[in-house]
Amino acid sequence: MRENTVRTIWNKGGAVINGWCGIPSSVAAENMAQAQWDSLTVDLQHGLVDYQAAVAMMQAISTTPTIPLARVPWLEPGIIMKLLDAGAYGIICPMINSRAECESFVGACRYAPAGYRSFGPVRAGWYGGPDYYAHANDTVLAIAMIETRQAVERLDEILTVPGLDGLYVGPNDLAITLGCAPSGTPTDKTVLDAIRRIAEAGKRHGIPAGIHCGSTQMAHEMIAIGYQFVTLLADNAFLAAAAKSAVSEMRTGKAAPKASGSY
Amino acid sequence: MRENTVRTIWNKGGAVINGWCGIPSSVAAENMAQAQWDSLTVDLQHGLVDYQAAVAMMQAISTTPTIPLARVPWLEPGIIMKLLDAGAYGIICPMINSRAECESFVGACRYAPAGYRSFGPVRAGWYGGPDYYAHANDTVLAIAMIETRQAVERLDEILTVPGLDGLYVGPNDLAITLGCAPSGTPTDKTVLDAIRRIAEAGKRHGIPAGIHCGSTQMAHEMIAIGYQFVTLLADNAFLAAAAKSAVSEMRTGKAAPKASGSY
Amino acid sequence: MRENTVRTIWNKGGAVINGWCGIPSSVAAENMAQAQWDSLTVDLQHGLVDYQAAVAMMQAISTTPTIPLARVPWLEPGIIMKLLDAGAYGIICPMINSRAECESFVGACRYAPAGYRSFGPVRAGWYGGPDYYAHANDTVLAIAMIETRQAVERLDEILTVPGLDGLYVGPNDLAITLGCAPSGTPTDKTVLDAIRRIAEAGKRHGIPAGIHCGSTQMAHEMIAIGYQFVTLLADNAFLAAAAKSAVSEMRTGKAAPKASGSY
Amino acid sequence: MRENTVRTIWNKGGAVINGWCGIPSSVAAENMAQAQWDSLTVDLQHGLVDYQAAVAMMQAISTTPTIPLARVPWLEPGIIMKLLDAGAYGIICPMINSRAECESFVGACRYAPAGYRSFGPVRAGWYGGPDYYAHANDTVLAIAMIETRQAVERLDEILTVPGLDGLYVGPNDLAITLGCAPSGTPTDKTVLDAIRRIAEAGKRHGIPAGIHCGSTQMAHEMIAIGYQFVTLLADNAFLAAAAKSAVSEMRTGKAAPKASGSY
Amino acid sequence: MRENTVRTIWNKGGAVINGWCGIPSSVAAENMAQAQWDSLTVDLQHGLVDYQAAVAMMQAISTTPTIPLARVPWLEPGIIMKLLDAGAYGIICPMINSRAECESFVGACRYAPAGYRSFGPVRAGWYGGPDYYAHANDTVLAIAMIETRQAVERLDEILTVPGLDGLYVGPNDLAITLGCAPSGTPTDKTVLDAIRRIAEAGKRHGIPAGIHCGSTQMAHEMIAIGYQFVTLLADNAFLAAAAKSAVSEMRTGKAAPKASGSY
Amino acid sequence: MRENTVRTIWNKGGAVINGWCGIPSSVAAENMAQAQWDSLTVDLQHGLVDYQAAVAMMQAISTTPTIPLARVPWLEPGIIMKLLDAGAYGIICPMINSRAECESFVGACRYAPAGYRSFGPVRAGWYGGPDYYAHANDTVLAIAMIETRQAVERLDEILTVPGLDGLYVGPNDLAITLGCAPSGTPTDKTVLDAIRRIAEAGKRHGIPAGIHCGSTQMAHEMIAIGYQFVTLLADNAFLAAAAKSAVSEMRTGKAAPKASGSY
Repeated sequence: MRENTVRTIWNKGGAVINGWCGIPSSVAAENMAQAQWDSLTVDLQHGLVDYQAAVAMMQAISTTPTIPLARVPWLEPGIIMKLLDAGAYGIICPMINSRAECESFVGACRYAPAGYRSFGPVRAGWYGGPDYYAHANDTVLAIAMIETRQAVERLDEILTVPGLDGLYVGPNDLAITLGCAPSGTPTDKTVLDAIRRIAEAGKRHGIPAGIHCGSTQMAHEMIAIGYQFVTLLADNAFLAAAAKSAVSEMRTGKAAPKASGSY
Repeated sequence: MRENTVRTIWNKGGAVINGWCGIPSSVAAENMAQAQWDSLTVDLQHGLVDYQAAVAMMQAISTTPTIPLARVPWLEPGIIMKLLDAGAYGIICPMINSRAECESFVGACRYAPAGYRSFGPVRAGWYGGPDYYAHANDTVLAIAMIETRQAVERLDEILTVPGLDGLYVGPNDLAITLGCAPSGTPTDKTVLDAIRRIAEAGKRHGIPAGIHCGSTQMAHEMIAIGYQFVTLLADNAFLAAAAKSAVSEMRTGKAAPKASGSY
Repeated sequence: MRENTVRTIWNKGGAVINGWCGIPSSVAAENMAQAQWDSLTVDLQHGLVDYQAAVAMMQAISTTPTIPLARVPWLEPGIIMKLLDAGAYGIICPMINSRAECESFVGACRYAPAGYRSFGPVRAGWYGGPDYYAHANDTVLAIAMIETRQAVERLDEILTVPGLDGLYVGPNDLAITLGCAPSGTPTDKTVLDAIRRIAEAGKRHGIPAGIHCGSTQMAHEMIAIGYQFVTLLADNAFLAAAAKSAVSEMRTGKAAPKASGSY
Repeated sequence: MRENTVRTIWNKGGAVINGWCGIPSSVAAENMAQAQWDSLTVDLQHGLVDYQAAVAMMQAISTTPTIPLARVPWLEPGIIMKLLDAGAYGIICPMINSRAECESFVGACRYAPAGYRSFGPVRAGWYGGPDYYAHANDTVLAIAMIETRQAVERLDEILTVPGLDGLYVGPNDLAITLGCAPSGTPTDKTVLDAIRRIAEAGKRHGIPAGIHCGSTQMAHEMIAIGYQFVTLLADNAFLAAAAKSAVSEMRTGKAAPKASGSY
Repeated sequence: MRENTVRTIWNKGGAVINGWCGIPSSVAAENMAQAQWDSLTVDLQHGLVDYQAAVAMMQAISTTPTIPLARVPWLEPGIIMKLLDAGAYGIICPMINSRAECESFVGACRYAPAGYRSFGPVRAGWYGGPDYYAHANDTVLAIAMIETRQAVERLDEILTVPGLDGLYVGPNDLAITLGCAPSGTPTDKTVLDAIRRIAEAGKRHGIPAGIHCGSTQMAHEMIAIGYQFVTLLADNAFLAAAAKSAVSEMRTGKAAPKASGSY
Repeated sequence: MRENTVRTIWNKGGAVINGWCGIPSSVAAENMAQAQWDSLTVDLQHGLVDYQAAVAMMQAISTTPTIPLARVPWLEPGIIMKLLDAGAYGIICPMINSRAECESFVGACRYAPAGYRSFGPVRAGWYGGPDYYAHANDTVLAIAMIETRQAVERLDEILTVPGLDGLYVGPNDLAITLGCAPSGTPTDKTVLDAIRRIAEAGKRHGIPAGIHCGSTQMAHEMIAIGYQFVTLLADNAFLAAAAKSAVSEMRTGKAAPKASGSY
């Protein structure tokens, strides 16, 4: 089976540089994939992407060595299994707030007896190889989003769910549920403390932690405090920033000031 | 009929800031349209876009005041008229190399007796208004690409075709046909001379000239020598540059050097 | 943030004229949007529409001042949040039959602490404006369908759920669960009584009530008994009626008799 | 091979009731097809439809006995042959203004030696039957649009092209090229005279003539003067009229007056 | 209402020959439908198909007498009802492991009082006929997948759910949950015993049983032991086998050996 | 630039095993690409495929080492250049019947001064590499279809067009224009003679010849007489044959006899 190089990087203690695809287009996805990210996540939650677009996007990503991951809209077994069958090498699931939710999520990613994933890996077999079934449970990643006050309070019960492979922090939702304003590059102490606490819990339980970052500066800082999977914004944010900067440079004669280190 | 503000800017002697859409997605197009370009061109030639995608992209652009234009793949009446019916407020046509080609092109954009455009402006009427037919010939733009050695040699015969509204320079094809290497920010004297000559011919005949630019710096220079319509790269180039820069900043600790002023 | 004019009309005590889109096409949606409805609902339940089509349809509607709403297939948080992120200014959710279901529904439409909506309003921000987050909870509408005998019996417990913005009656399902035949223009006393009772409960709790109508005559009657949001059939019903009438006029020499005031 | 019932009706001297599909959706097409038209034309010229949408629309039409036809964007052999391969049982080609154009058009619809159509009727074979090749030349219809002053002047040279099966009048373009305002229900004597002349020429040469009609009244009148193929508006016009009428009835309390007998 | 010939075959004691569509294309679906299957199942679980593709696929199937069925991704009411509205004449639901799940599934397929299906059969009415509502509960099929150890242990409680129309065995998942390797043509005694036991339970309760088969040989054997609905592989498996065999014959000079009687 | 292994095989005197994609689906294309063809041709002529589908199909093919080619609908520069920009490593152009047509075709595939291809290889650069422009003229293949009596008579004038890389025979059209019935596995002496004559002309001028084959047996025979590029049927033919055979085996108890060695 094709190696999941996200695991390989983690096994060496490294940090994965992850890109994010929210534009529902296989052309935009291949465009992104040319930049040699370690992994690219097709976002079916806040991205404007549904399953059929995601299939074509993962095909486009598969023209390169970048590993395709997917974020699902919600903890729903149907879409989790469909994306795995379509060749996602990992699923990021939003709003895992309890041990039961985490078990339900991990189970959807694993064939029995480890879980209850149904068998039928059509494109997964094309991408992963004919021995997909034999190695899938050990290859595809189940990554739970820790992004609420409740989840932070229950870190130890969530992180001990067998088979959980990674954590992922959504700073905006974390901020909101902690009573702060959402921000892609958080500065509230409450939020930063929670972010640190999550990384520590990950270390404690041997579960690599990831986080969405609003700038490369933040991403470097997150790696410094123990994160091993950093996402840099998203395709639509790149496009918006570049377009606005170009227009601003033409209208005002100088580039738009970059917002707090973001792209 | 809705005003074509590209004409308005030209009538005031100003320069139009034009964006370029080659990703076949209405989401990417609306993303671009948020940046307040004067106009956005949906590129059906080198962009990865066909007619059906272009319709949805022009709908997305029409959620903003930005004027939707389209570049056709080739001088073929079918697609020119289809894009006008779909609401394009101007057509950029590649490789106009003779007076006959220019007449054929302009005729496809005009109702009789000025041309031979067929009547049926379904979405054009939604976008332009119920009086579309009465004003279309004076509103939609016919913009011929001058991008070969042959076209430069025939500027005066091409520019005197009645009804031609604008010129547009593709620096890459111009360079190639002049025996130089293609470049989005040309530096060959031969190419720069031709670019200057085209602007001068435009001025002489009262036809505003436009050009594709590889950087804002080049765009400012082009405006300085008389161009009144400057395109800044393209959505896919923005996305590629931002993604590569992000990965580079993460891997090397510093941003990728920007190539000669381009985005 | 862009004003939700459905709320504005309600605040003035008026009735919203709502259209209904079940054809999965951004062209059909823009066609409908040209008719100056107060709002248009993209129907992902009984319409033949899924998420990706709905995004393009809402883009098309956003070329006009008509407010885009969406009906979801079922009470499932994933699709509710995806449609809000895509710019729906309100969600109509079918089959809300208990207080718990209503709480779950309203919560999916609200950021914490009012609910559990996840943050990432990409297109919602383009449509609503950069201050979307600050005002979203007070702007987007959570409209629960009251369309079963059970729901009618529990009106008071359902209508007191904090944050519920509106009710919506599906006369067909209401009729079926009350033991009557489904009808778009109900005449059974049982059904009409329930329809009246729902409007009264809405008034009692200050929650505007809406209803699907099979004719303009019915819509006027519903407004007369207190409904403040009336839907006139659907795009596919308009198309079917017009086509059948045209064929009938050609074959029989006279127009098809209109079925009980419907279009 | 499946019978082309358009020919059957013509052979009996009858008139074909034709519908028109410009909304790029297989759902809208099936919706239309439920009305039992004799034939439905997928419009790739002024409809917002391209090839891939047209394939799905013709599949949808093929769920009923209605015969699928297609109008191409322009006299271009590629798209004519692609639509025939996709199962169109006739092609309507715009702007046939000379004998040479008519020969080129008819040739694209016929296998050698009658023409130069390339062999590969994949879906055509599914729709027409395994003996498609043997009967295609005698079954599929080549219908030339006569819609300019020039074409009217050359009727006899155009109508004697061997293999031409039908004529089709676009009243709007005819009016424009005759110096009148475009109208779906023409009243200018110049236009009406030309319309009459075309029908007479058709009769003279044994070629059935068809025409686009803005109302059933006009369609009945056209049949009365010899037309044997009448189109009633289009799906998007039906939808627009019904939606506007519904909104008007709600806002003003009475239906919108119908424009000169149109739907 | 159009007859559901799957029921007709069952009523005569016969076995249904079912095909399987996992390629998200209406062209592939019509291609399959030309082979005169009794029924074709659009697979939204392991097929690479979502709702919008499924609609077009069912339209394509509806050009023939073959009955369209659909397998849903999971027991989720939204997608079950959407597919029924789109004209599926039966739903196959994966992983029904308890009486409660079976009741929830059957209820989603039935209008009240038999179930809780919501009313709005737009395309279902086009396909089934104007009297769809009156006969739908007795026509559309609710087929539960029995494919886990747990389900086999609970056969009698599951099969006595009122309104259940059929069973369907997924041999791969059945094998996995029984501790065996997945196989499309199972040979493990444990799996074969369970397969036999399921057919016997079906007979006992008067519920026809179906099964996915990896070869025609297996299908004949399954019919021999009482199965009345056999699926032969899937479109993508047919395509893969034919393509591999062709390449092998060209490279090695002889056909690839067929794996255990499969295609 | 990525190597065009079709050229490599030809340079070694070998024969290319080519597959054919006419189903408009990136999933079907990736399914085909798993079979390790030397090349796969996306067919935009008789396949039910247009440009936008072709882009996704070529992306899918690019997940494997198989070389993506495309057949265009007709000799039209717009679509030829669009497909090259989208990453096709060769274009097969139908109905090249004269030297002028061949020059026009080859020119559309080459940058100046060798031709008149316009510059903008967006996806071509992703697939081919950043040095695409420098090597494109020597890498991408211009393959002219020789498939009419006229073309056979003009072989020497056509084959001496500078830059022509290959020939391709369509046996069906060749047969028709020679007065024979179309056949995928021709047996008419007239057709076989022409097929032999084309291969000989190719040898004489150093231009590899290819041909569409209805069976592996025919393909082996064609290689034996000098063809260096053989296509085995098409995806839709594979699917049809497998489906029909499966149904036949179930209904009659034995496999369908294979038609004259075809799949």
